[in-house]
Amino acid sequence: MARSAGHPEAAPCPISPVVDIVFSRWTTPILWTLNEFGTQRFVELERRLADITPKVLTQRLRQLERDGLVGRVYHAEVPPRVEYEISELGRSLAPVFSTLTVWAQEHLDQVADARGDYDVAGKPKP
Amino acid sequence: MARSAGHPEAAPCPISPVVDIVFSRWTTPILWTLNEFGTQRFVELERRLADITPKVLTQRLRQLERDGLVGRVYHAEVPPRVEYEISELGRSLAPVFSTLTVWAQEHLDQVADARGDYDVAGKPKP
Repeated sequence: MARSAGHPEAAPCPISPVVDIVFSRWTTPILWTLNEFGTQRFVELERRLADITPKVLTQRLRQLERDGLVGRVYHAEVPPRVEYEISELGRSLAPVFSTLTVWAQEHLDQVADARGDYDVAGKPKP
Repeated sequence: MARSAGHPEAAPCPISPVVDIVFSRWTTPILWTLNEFGTQRFVELERRLADITPKVLTQRLRQLERDGLVGRVYHAEVPPRVEYEISELGRSLAPVFSTLTVWAQEHLDQVADARGDYDVAGKPKP
């Protein structure tokens, strides 16, 4: 286990690039909502996400579109209609989200307990 | 699929609480490093994480300790020695990290391709 070394070299975490793509602020709820409720217009996403501002929703949708996780569907009607949908690449995240949901169900209580204990004990000893 | 509704209600994403705990800035690399290299002193973590400041590392370790994901081991020696280790609860995140690593290996190329296409095409049409 403890491969201890007094002067270790930098060891880049291989998960961090995914974290920036999938778990930056608001991207997870947007992907989850598109996966759960299907193709949606901007205003529908805005209502389901509740606390998001239109500016941030626009930015996040562009980022997700650029990363290939969300598709933008343009309907050439009068007036034109735009919808957003999760892409096949976005859908490939389903096992990731599902593993996370299972972890949350099984362990969030323990996190809450740990916080309670820590806050009662005050600072870590000594 | 598209359970469309004109006036949907707010739908809270069930994954977001986990995201704040596990994927906030620096927490993933710290957990990954402790899991990968075992129990470590502050200075070892600092070297492996490379870009982190001591202040931020201290804050993140307290947060992870409060959440019960990291344990702090105090050795009453002269001078006293403190080490950090991943807890059993932290170790329970292994399947989450492993699913993420697999997704990264299989799909990060597609994200890079999507970005290239998006940047060549310029803004989304029309």
